[in-house]
Amino acid sequence: MKRRLLLVSNSTLHGGGYLGHCQDNISDFFGKVNFSSSLPSEDRKSVDEGQDVKSVLFVPYALHDRDAYTRTARDKFQTLGYELESIHEASDPVEAVRKAEGFFIGGGNTFRLLKSLYDNQVVSEIRRRVMEDGVPYMGSSAGTNVATVSISTTNDMPIVFPPSFSAIGLVPFNINPHYLEPDPGSRHMGETREQRITQYHEEPDTPQVLGLREGSMLLVEGNRATLLGTTKAKLFSRGRPSVEYDLGSDLSFLLTDGGPPPST
Amino acid sequence: MKRRLLLVSNSTLHGGGYLGHCQDNISDFFGKVNFSSSLPSEDRKSVDEGQDVKSVLFVPYALHDRDAYTRTARDKFQTLGYELESIHEASDPVEAVRKAEGFFIGGGNTFRLLKSLYDNQVVSEIRRRVMEDGVPYMGSSAGTNVATVSISTTNDMPIVFPPSFSAIGLVPFNINPHYLEPDPGSRHMGETREQRITQYHEEPDTPQVLGLREGSMLLVEGNRATLLGTTKAKLFSRGRPSVEYDLGSDLSFLLTDGGPPPST
Repeated sequence: MKRRLLLVSNSTLHGGGYLGHCQDNISDFFGKVNFSSSLPSEDRKSVDEGQDVKSVLFVPYALHDRDAYTRTARDKFQTLGYELESIHEASDPVEAVRKAEGFFIGGGNTFRLLKSLYDNQVVSEIRRRVMEDGVPYMGSSAGTNVATVSISTTNDMPIVFPPSFSAIGLVPFNINPHYLEPDPGSRHMGETREQRITQYHEEPDTPQVLGLREGSMLLVEGNRATLLGTTKAKLFSRGRPSVEYDLGSDLSFLLTDGGPPPST
Repeated sequence: MKRRLLLVSNSTLHGGGYLGHCQDNISDFFGKVNFSSSLPSEDRKSVDEGQDVKSVLFVPYALHDRDAYTRTARDKFQTLGYELESIHEASDPVEAVRKAEGFFIGGGNTFRLLKSLYDNQVVSEIRRRVMEDGVPYMGSSAGTNVATVSISTTNDMPIVFPPSFSAIGLVPFNINPHYLEPDPGSRHMGETREQRITQYHEEPDTPQVLGLREGSMLLVEGNRATLLGTTKAKLFSRGRPSVEYDLGSDLSFLLTDGGPPPST
């Protein structure tokens, strides 16, 4: 299993610039990648001698103005030393995915993003490139949602109707980005985030949900998963109490097909 | 056009009991209904001499525990003088809709509610009873969402996949229940409610969206719509600034097939 994922809760942290809070993680992530998919097998390098990514394929489908979004992402990635191509500028999106050295799927509206991924027929090709070829995948917010089993734990409004809520499926669990606790001073009576996730777990066969607070991210390397960033994360499992995990926690158990966490 | 609708933002207001904040409106609404569908036309009464509803058909599909939800709703409606039958206890849901004197569709998860309405094949029959027979329809939260064009402006998580986001369509616009402004002191960076509705309006052919704050409700009688309750409402139209409407406002322009509001 070659997969390498950097799944970020949010692209902008309060008081910071676009991707500012995770820029060191981005450099670590794309800077030491085992990129070997398009080479004959005898030329492939091991993870330890992995090759740096020079150019990242950006997916701006989650926002309406794809050109403006690409400029924002390109500016940031160039300051970090990477070229950035956008899939919406490619004449053949599937071919662009086939050639990509790395993916960055940006945030916005998750329904719009997933529908566009299906409309452009790149869902299974992205999965293949990540899972079989080891092409690194970075997602932020909606781009993190679509990396999981389904978009059923997004916070976004269903502004368009995708053909399915099933997503790219790079991990066997779901994530709730921008996770937050209710404000204890609020008089608002709408469901809390935790109540919404509990409703999801009332449905049969629903996987675990990792609540990633703003400032946190999950690094997945093969069968290892580690919590990075500046905040704890909260794990919700069907029929069990939620569990908080500290920064740096090894969450590899989440990758064993949605199985239960070890008793703590 | 006989339709009579009471579309409530929320079933429980901070500090109050279940449906407490709108109980007088419920009594007004079901107490003077033009219920005449099952009578021969010569026996039908006009709106002015309308007949009181004795029993309301409850739809508890939005919550997982339908029995418990029905007990809660039944207790409340009985204190107001109405019997309450639940559609989930009927052997034939479509037949229950055909016989209903009034509808109350409760809140919970909007996706679960709409999927169950489709699964039980009652969407078009509810529409027919309300629009043609004048059977009064009360919705709260998710039950208000499904009364509109689509559920595309719900706040809920997409925990199940309905066959469509198109809803019962009793009015030609959408509602966002539990509408709220962002807390100015918050450091949370997820999209505000207004930003989410703006994203909806970036999509083509999207209708107006009425943001109903907790405490407010919309009364629709034929081609008249009036804002009731304790809070103002905010109307969002494609490509135009949002507009606030005071309590008691005549919002009948919303019923003319999503047309623009008069200049103010």
